[in-house]
Amino acid sequence: MTPHESPTADVGFAGCSALITGGLGFIGSHVARRLVGLGARVTVVDSLIPEYGGNLQNISDIAGQLRINVSDVRDPHSFRSLLAGQDYLFNLAGQTSHQDSMDNPFTDLEINCTAQLSILEACRQYNPGIRIVFASTRQIYGRPDYLPVDERHPLRPVDVNGINKLAGENYHQLYQQVYDIPTCALRLTNTYGPAMRIKDARQTFLGIWIRRLLEDEPFEVWGGAQLRDFNYVDDVVDALLLAIRHPNAEGKVFNLGSPEVVSLTALAQQLVAAHGRGGFSIRDFPAERKKIDIGDYYSDYRALAALGWQPQVSLASGLTRTLAYFREHLEHYR
Amino acid sequence: MTPHESPTADVGFAGCSALITGGLGFIGSHVARRLVGLGARVTVVDSLIPEYGGNLQNISDIAGQLRINVSDVRDPHSFRSLLAGQDYLFNLAGQTSHQDSMDNPFTDLEINCTAQLSILEACRQYNPGIRIVFASTRQIYGRPDYLPVDERHPLRPVDVNGINKLAGENYHQLYQQVYDIPTCALRLTNTYGPAMRIKDARQTFLGIWIRRLLEDEPFEVWGGAQLRDFNYVDDVVDALLLAIRHPNAEGKVFNLGSPEVVSLTALAQQLVAAHGRGGFSIRDFPAERKKIDIGDYYSDYRALAALGWQPQVSLASGLTRTLAYFREHLEHYR
Repeated sequence: MTPHESPTADVGFAGCSALITGGLGFIGSHVARRLVGLGARVTVVDSLIPEYGGNLQNISDIAGQLRINVSDVRDPHSFRSLLAGQDYLFNLAGQTSHQDSMDNPFTDLEINCTAQLSILEACRQYNPGIRIVFASTRQIYGRPDYLPVDERHPLRPVDVNGINKLAGENYHQLYQQVYDIPTCALRLTNTYGPAMRIKDARQTFLGIWIRRLLEDEPFEVWGGAQLRDFNYVDDVVDALLLAIRHPNAEGKVFNLGSPEVVSLTALAQQLVAAHGRGGFSIRDFPAERKKIDIGDYYSDYRALAALGWQPQVSLASGLTRTLAYFREHLEHYR
Repeated sequence: MTPHESPTADVGFAGCSALITGGLGFIGSHVARRLVGLGARVTVVDSLIPEYGGNLQNISDIAGQLRINVSDVRDPHSFRSLLAGQDYLFNLAGQTSHQDSMDNPFTDLEINCTAQLSILEACRQYNPGIRIVFASTRQIYGRPDYLPVDERHPLRPVDVNGINKLAGENYHQLYQQVYDIPTCALRLTNTYGPAMRIKDARQTFLGIWIRRLLEDEPFEVWGGAQLRDFNYVDDVVDALLLAIRHPNAEGKVFNLGSPEVVSLTALAQQLVAAHGRGGFSIRDFPAERKKIDIGDYYSDYRALAALGWQPQVSLASGLTRTLAYFREHLEHYR
């Protein structure tokens, strides 16, 4: 993958130590690569559970330059040792599938609530000066009352995943307020790019679209009219690196977002155009998904923009880069 | 205890079956007594853990008229059987101490999140028609932006207990939205009355005040200027019985509250006056408590008033009745 640089976000990591939960996953592996390039000592923690995002292929190009620690965030014992000497914690591990959270609510609870509390308790006891950024989600807003959705929008999650991620975000806020641990949280919207999970729709529907397209099969668009915003993964890495160090980010939450808002049908058309061939069908939402769908969503991300973040990669360019990556590495991801 | 009646709330329970979690506790035992009086078949579930509110003394006058099932809501196995044939679930069990939630966050999580999800999953699988009311708390609002606090106020809990109770409330909302289980939630403010925990301040500071007063010892008021609203327990029982059956309550949350708003110092003076003797000292908040204090709080409860609920018992009358009860039964509560 081509190195990405951000003059705003990249300062201050050379010679530092960073721990990344979910570090073999989609976003985590990109954070790891950026930090390695900046001269940080990087440890990635990942359970490598096949249903989640971890994949050794994601860091194959930098495997000799970081420490890989295979463990689960639900293991309450390992973090005392893992946190020792760390300057930064990119806390990205999570259960991300909305439908899985309804089918297995206790698993979602263990990962997105219990493990988060356990990580924060370990920070409080063993490394209270560690700077933390938590990957939260726009899912906690539920169905928007107004668009674009800013950080003051009511929080009414429509699935177990959203409820538990909200608790996880709240724990991070609380440990900053009560224990002065410098945490902040980013509410991610749809993130896409090389190394995303394309085996199924557990991380994002766009993953399965890309896989079907590359296998010369039509993909399914559910609904189609829903508006969404998308961030290319390098822009999300910029945001994480900026937020974890910015003094004005401490104890706060920030939306990510994009100036490009598209309907799912328009996105599907753009994806097919970027690939140069292929097709899709439009179908109604399955009944059990309809109840946890949020309708139109896009973010107001001016609060993070005020700290210096702007998405740099257009949707057209990002989709092209993503397809190019998976064309080359498809066998490792399906 | 003298029977209390509410023409609005009391209809529809004769011959029905009701399960009450936390049913040997303060509020739970009052719900049990009311329902027994109305001719319902009542089962109370309680762990009788000494640090929580359960106390067999609370139901000693009706012990032969209900079924007592000693079990913990964290036991995921017992609810299949306990829910069979039940028409109503008064879901009142919870860890209530703010400070305990900071000292033992995982215990709070198990009781206020995991167990709630487990109870709702059991309802979904084995008794999806059961009507549920959940005892939520004003603690989920955190420090008010404005007063009185209505249900649209932002939710920014300031302790682990508030975060977990919010998740518990959200689960109840979700299971109504997705699975059509008729749930609703009441956000209780300070509830007081006979059978409250007075051994310590785990349920409410008012408990320890009363105990000290009855033991002829001065009690401590922390701060003193904070405004609060109080509900006598019979009024809370009215609200629970009304909400669990009202079709317009389904899937909704409602504040409880009172037209009487008093400072803690004024409350202390009123309590001493009601007892006829005694005294108190005013001291600064301990540092570790200050961080999780919410300042002034009182509720806008017009939404529940629109369904027909109004608190009936004045603070003066409620304090007098409470003191009379504990004067007679003090040995069972300290």
